Amino acid sequence: MTNIMLGEFLGTAIILLFGNGTNAANTLNKSFAKGTGWVFIAFGWGLGVFAGIVVSNPLSGAHLNPAVSLAMLMQQAISLPEFVIYFGAQLMGAIFGSWLVYQLYYDHFTASLENKSLGGVFFTNAASANTMRNLLSEVVGTFILVLFILNTAHDTSASSLFVPFLIVGIGIALGSLTGYAINPVRDLGPRLMYTFTRLSGHCKDTNWSYAWIPIIGPLLGAGLATLVYQFMVTLL
Amino acid sequence: MTNIMLGEFLGTAIILLFGNGTNAANTLNKSFAKGTGWVFIAFGWGLGVFAGIVVSNPLSGAHLNPAVSLAMLMQQAISLPEFVIYFGAQLMGAIFGSWLVYQLYYDHFTASLENKSLGGVFFTNAASANTMRNLLSEVVGTFILVLFILNTAHDTSASSLFVPFLIVGIGIALGSLTGYAINPVRDLGPRLMYTFTRLSGHCKDTNWSYAWIPIIGPLLGAGLATLVYQFMVTLL
Amino acid sequence: MTNIMLGEFLGTAIILLFGNGTNAANTLNKSFAKGTGWVFIAFGWGLGVFAGIVVSNPLSGAHLNPAVSLAMLMQQAISLPEFVIYFGAQLMGAIFGSWLVYQLYYDHFTASLENKSLGGVFFTNAASANTMRNLLSEVVGTFILVLFILNTAHDTSASSLFVPFLIVGIGIALGSLTGYAINPVRDLGPRLMYTFTRLSGHCKDTNWSYAWIPIIGPLLGAGLATLVYQFMVTLL
Amino acid sequence: MTNIMLGEFLGTAIILLFGNGTNAANTLNKSFAKGTGWVFIAFGWGLGVFAGIVVSNPLSGAHLNPAVSLAMLMQQAISLPEFVIYFGAQLMGAIFGSWLVYQLYYDHFTASLENKSLGGVFFTNAASANTMRNLLSEVVGTFILVLFILNTAHDTSASSLFVPFLIVGIGIALGSLTGYAINPVRDLGPRLMYTFTRLSGHCKDTNWSYAWIPIIGPLLGAGLATLVYQFMVTLL
Repeated sequence: MTNIMLGEFLGTAIILLFGNGTNAANTLNKSFAKGTGWVFIAFGWGLGVFAGIVVSNPLSGAHLNPAVSLAMLMQQAISLPEFVIYFGAQLMGAIFGSWLVYQLYYDHFTASLENKSLGGVFFTNAASANTMRNLLSEVVGTFILVLFILNTAHDTSASSLFVPFLIVGIGIALGSLTGYAINPVRDLGPRLMYTFTRLSGHCKDTNWSYAWIPIIGPLLGAGLATLVYQFMVTLL
Repeated sequence: MTNIMLGEFLGTAIILLFGNGTNAANTLNKSFAKGTGWVFIAFGWGLGVFAGIVVSNPLSGAHLNPAVSLAMLMQQAISLPEFVIYFGAQLMGAIFGSWLVYQLYYDHFTASLENKSLGGVFFTNAASANTMRNLLSEVVGTFILVLFILNTAHDTSASSLFVPFLIVGIGIALGSLTGYAINPVRDLGPRLMYTFTRLSGHCKDTNWSYAWIPIIGPLLGAGLATLVYQFMVTLL
Repeated sequence: MTNIMLGEFLGTAIILLFGNGTNAANTLNKSFAKGTGWVFIAFGWGLGVFAGIVVSNPLSGAHLNPAVSLAMLMQQAISLPEFVIYFGAQLMGAIFGSWLVYQLYYDHFTASLENKSLGGVFFTNAASANTMRNLLSEVVGTFILVLFILNTAHDTSASSLFVPFLIVGIGIALGSLTGYAINPVRDLGPRLMYTFTRLSGHCKDTNWSYAWIPIIGPLLGAGLATLVYQFMVTLL
Repeated sequence: MTNIMLGEFLGTAIILLFGNGTNAANTLNKSFAKGTGWVFIAFGWGLGVFAGIVVSNPLSGAHLNPAVSLAMLMQQAISLPEFVIYFGAQLMGAIFGSWLVYQLYYDHFTASLENKSLGGVFFTNAASANTMRNLLSEVVGTFILVLFILNTAHDTSASSLFVPFLIVGIGIALGSLTGYAINPVRDLGPRLMYTFTRLSGHCKDTNWSYAWIPIIGPLLGAGLATLVYQFMVTLL
């Protein structure tokens, strides 16, 4: 159990450190990389997932996402108590990774206070608010992620590089709709962390009314993908 | 047969979802990634092919392109009735994938109506109209694609990442001529879908007179590549 | 011998088609990708080498560069008559590949005649003219290329992707000095072809006085790298 | 011992040649690639590490970084006298690689003298000066690098491509804080070299007061990562 907790905590912390760090580098004043754009962002998140997978895989199997853990639960690869442990460690890791970005980029945040949506460095928002379409965006993105993972899970050497490339692809193709959470803790962890910082008092942009979409959407997408995969396996 | 239909449908739908989604993200107002440019576009399409191959490969061998299926028919890897099934499933997948982009980006399309060539998000057009050169562009691109695939088809672990990288390369080197269909359904599916949307009534840019080029060009290129490959094999 | 000639011709033609095509896409008016920049260029050439290697490797071992063939000659992997055949086929391929770009992008060239250095689409020039430094740039780039290839040549599955990534790296790190020929036919082939087009009459920029540097530099670099490699092997 | 010295010298020289070359290409006047930006920079450094690993791996195991050698010392894979040899060869390589960039780009430096921070081509500086945060940035980046390497060190075929991709990711996510030395000689070597050039007399920007941070930070991060890894191994 310690191995699962440490692996998922470390791996998810690395994802958020890289991902939120990439957003900070692209957004904040005084950053060398300000305004680099969406290729930069897509590769930053993808390579964060890559680093997280490699470090956590021997310890915990590198779920790093409650949507993936849900698929593994439905596949009976883990039990319900294990799911709870996976989820808890992932959430702690996400909070810690995003807090580290807050600390590392603190002087850059302080130099960027004219930007009133600094929360966007940490958590996701819809480019165009529309509950059903935003939810569908998270469902579709996670459906493909989980269907892909289930197809590569038997080959760990491939999946450590394959899944990160897929994440880059989802970021490019679908990321500009809702910021592609496709992972409940990727959004919930940083949003929680941000709520307790001075930045959120200044910007007033925690936007908790949106927070259920990047939780429910990915779980729905993962459930659907697992059902489709279980049907696919019967055809082989 | 169900496995072929499901595999090709899912895989081609994913390609069009990623590819048309990338175009939408790069083109439409309110998109976070508007105007990112051609590296973004080339990687978006390439990674869509990557996702489509991984998901469909166990079910159908991941043709995802009637030009590839034609090569497999000429190589006697599939029969003519199977070719028809491959083609039908690919076309349905392409229509569905592009329709999903239409739904997901609906609010962004609505916010971009001053752009009268919104069809360019979905299907291809020539940068400079010239029947013979445009046809040649599609022939050459598909010739290389199919010759490459025939050289890697015996090694599925390599080809799942190799072909996507090639697609990125074709997009960079030749994509700016005719939008690199190099796949008849990649163009025909979205063009059909678009014709029935309200957008095409508004923009009047379905451009069906061009539609035969990205169908005939890829089939010619694939046929030629298969003949060259069959000669190459006699030299080994 | 037919296999060597066909393999090297096809492979080198593909490199020039992709590379010169990428330059054309980045440079010419009416191209969808005009002005995308140096990440685009570096990946276009790298992925051209990738496509060329995969297609030619079973036939000829994928030298695709007289500097590589020189190293193989020094390693006694090929004979001097074979070297001549390799070189001839590579030069023919380079001429044909760049001629294909001229044909495919013809309307774009015609629309870009206000640009008086259209030759830069096809062959290389120094960013800052200085014989010794320009020569050194080609020597250093090819030294690393050939030392790298000699270290990976025993593992063909790795090298088909490894060498292209290296080419991307050389393009990024050293390409902006002399356009990184690092291959005599990559420069000589297109320069010859261009000299016989109407474009060169219009632009008067064939710059043949520079042409010996991207021939001699790569051969020197390759010879030096082979000597260093032969010393390295004695240490293992 | 000669193999270690040659391997580490060559490999580290290649990293600095590629990395400082990329910075020069991105920064200096008359460079074809001036102002390409941070995706270009991150890939240039990552691919330099890739070239360095492939060339040096058979000779010395490709540490190329005293922080990595420290981890290997703590893992008892090398002895203290070997550590000293590794470090010396790495420092010599870093000085030579950056000096080569100075020579190759000499005319471009001369054409860029209005820029008074030309030292930034060679060594690192903080985007926002803050001793503890700058140190933390180098500790965190190297912690992840070394933890990653220890997890992949048993599989050399994977790590030759895996570590470079990680370097790209660290560059994107954390590089804009302190220029991501994450390697003591990557900063110390070029800073030493630069101090003896005419450029530093002109610019007066050697900034030696900062130089201890990219030395101490990476060593601290590597030590911490090795301790965490040694705990992780007990859980397997």
